[in-house]
Amino acid sequence: MAIKVAILGYGTVGEGVYKGIQNHQEQLIEKLGDAVEVAGILVRDPLKKRDVQPGTFITTRFEEILAIPGLHAVFEAIVGKEPGYTYLSQCIEKGCHVITANKVLFAKYGNELLKKSKQHGVHIGYEATTAGAVPIIRTLQELLKVNRVTRIQGILNGTSNFILTEMRANRLSFGEALKLAQDNGYAEANPENDVEGKDAACKLKILCQLAFGCTPDWEEVEVEGIAAITSGEVQKAEAEGFRYKHIADIRAEGGKLKASVKPIAVSSAHPLFSVEGVDNAITLETSLAGNLTLQGAGAGKFPTASAMLEDFSAILEKSLRTKIHLLSARVPV
Amino acid sequence: MAIKVAILGYGTVGEGVYKGIQNHQEQLIEKLGDAVEVAGILVRDPLKKRDVQPGTFITTRFEEILAIPGLHAVFEAIVGKEPGYTYLSQCIEKGCHVITANKVLFAKYGNELLKKSKQHGVHIGYEATTAGAVPIIRTLQELLKVNRVTRIQGILNGTSNFILTEMRANRLSFGEALKLAQDNGYAEANPENDVEGKDAACKLKILCQLAFGCTPDWEEVEVEGIAAITSGEVQKAEAEGFRYKHIADIRAEGGKLKASVKPIAVSSAHPLFSVEGVDNAITLETSLAGNLTLQGAGAGKFPTASAMLEDFSAILEKSLRTKIHLLSARVPV
Repeated sequence: MAIKVAILGYGTVGEGVYKGIQNHQEQLIEKLGDAVEVAGILVRDPLKKRDVQPGTFITTRFEEILAIPGLHAVFEAIVGKEPGYTYLSQCIEKGCHVITANKVLFAKYGNELLKKSKQHGVHIGYEATTAGAVPIIRTLQELLKVNRVTRIQGILNGTSNFILTEMRANRLSFGEALKLAQDNGYAEANPENDVEGKDAACKLKILCQLAFGCTPDWEEVEVEGIAAITSGEVQKAEAEGFRYKHIADIRAEGGKLKASVKPIAVSSAHPLFSVEGVDNAITLETSLAGNLTLQGAGAGKFPTASAMLEDFSAILEKSLRTKIHLLSARVPV
Repeated sequence: MAIKVAILGYGTVGEGVYKGIQNHQEQLIEKLGDAVEVAGILVRDPLKKRDVQPGTFITTRFEEILAIPGLHAVFEAIVGKEPGYTYLSQCIEKGCHVITANKVLFAKYGNELLKKSKQHGVHIGYEATTAGAVPIIRTLQELLKVNRVTRIQGILNGTSNFILTEMRANRLSFGEALKLAQDNGYAEANPENDVEGKDAACKLKILCQLAFGCTPDWEEVEVEGIAAITSGEVQKAEAEGFRYKHIADIRAEGGKLKASVKPIAVSSAHPLFSVEGVDNAITLETSLAGNLTLQGAGAGKFPTASAMLEDFSAILEKSLRTKIHLLSARVPV
């Protein structure tokens, strides 16, 4: 019997998840034992033409998604806190696993949702909220359990990094580089969240909660974007061997957490010095492993879908394993 | 009751594991529910002074390690295929989990050991065999299950990378750079395995088996070290914007695996261009995530111990989870 999933929102990310599922059925069947069926897609405009298999159930009504019998998991790829939060809460209450790419929602309601998911015996995947395809969430959750993480530094906004790279490498002004980012589809029409550091701050919040189990007083955290950096400053830094990088930084110092999100001119000795273009990267300082850096695509259709589908596969395997243990243990009864 | 472990071999890595366990008891207790006790250490020279807690059981006889009652896991940090293979086989047969840093052994006998471990219901951790603290093995095993990995490129030998970096950045000759590596403790007195590419080839074999489930005909694989590279070639490449990197490469092409291990002059567009010094790094090409690069310490006392202790924690949690499920399921009986 196919594993039934639904996709909430069919923009770039939602479509990436849909196509990713279609193109990776072989892997999914091998890992999960069954094919994955997209049993419903929630959209805003029902009339828009979409490249989906004939007969795919498309609706504008969330209740109809929730009513799908035997729904295993929901991929949420909507923008903004609402209606995402309401939808995810209802899915969890119904016993449905949830995979989200919604960083604004998760930075705000992550703890509530995780608590609720425990109560209802389901899992939440949120790898896609932070640094696109880079598996930083699950590296922290699963691969670094003995190490103490003492500092996280990240380039968490691809648009800002693209702009800074263009200003340096091709001597563009901020305005020209921003326009190029928009022309390439990297930046939103309203680029405020990206270039003013809000997007990076949101992701840092998620990483901080995960790595340190608490957050600093965000009202006091310095959050500065890249909009005020001039071409002259970038050129001057380069002449001296430095590069401006927009770095989200959180570190444990003397029993307290210190955070900042701002552009910094780093030397070639800094682990994020050579991260260029739209890539994201994170350097973890740890007690045993030393510095670990993960780098990859910070956004985009398939990179974001990658994070969501890997979450999905891990969650399904986990819940499958539990069931097998329970079943096999019950055999003697 | 403490979780009992033994350490086979007490060189740099064995000592790193011992100290790592002592310094991370809090983390281990939190994750595993119990303290971890080093119940035995296998050494060659019983008289050598070692900085271990008074009363620690130290022996030169493997049988005495194997006879420790209730031994949960063994950390193997011996050099060479034997006696490591015999020891690990016996541990597995006894129902003991095994964590190894021995790449020569694992490249040769990995498949046999994995098969044997399945038969005996135990786990093998081998993260430390490849790229030190960089969690490439478990990233491939656990974080990339839906993605198809199509190519792996790695800087897998820190000594070679250090030498190439010094030849470029400080204009040393190969001989001078090698001597510096030896003075810094990076290179063995006999550096053949490192500078002739054998060490990197060994690690590539392990990655290849894991990622592709099979290996190319290794007799036909080009394995070339860095010993023949001249200072002049390095300078010429740099003047043209290139850097020599010793790259272990394996890719799926037309249904066949193609591998090579050799120095390549790469441009700044290559994801491994800026990996310098003793670091290791691996770039994975994948079907959904695109290019993912992981970078960190490729060797050393604590980085290697990090990989082994993270393996240990994951294995213990896994086997603990199975037991809890079985127990909780049996309650109604």
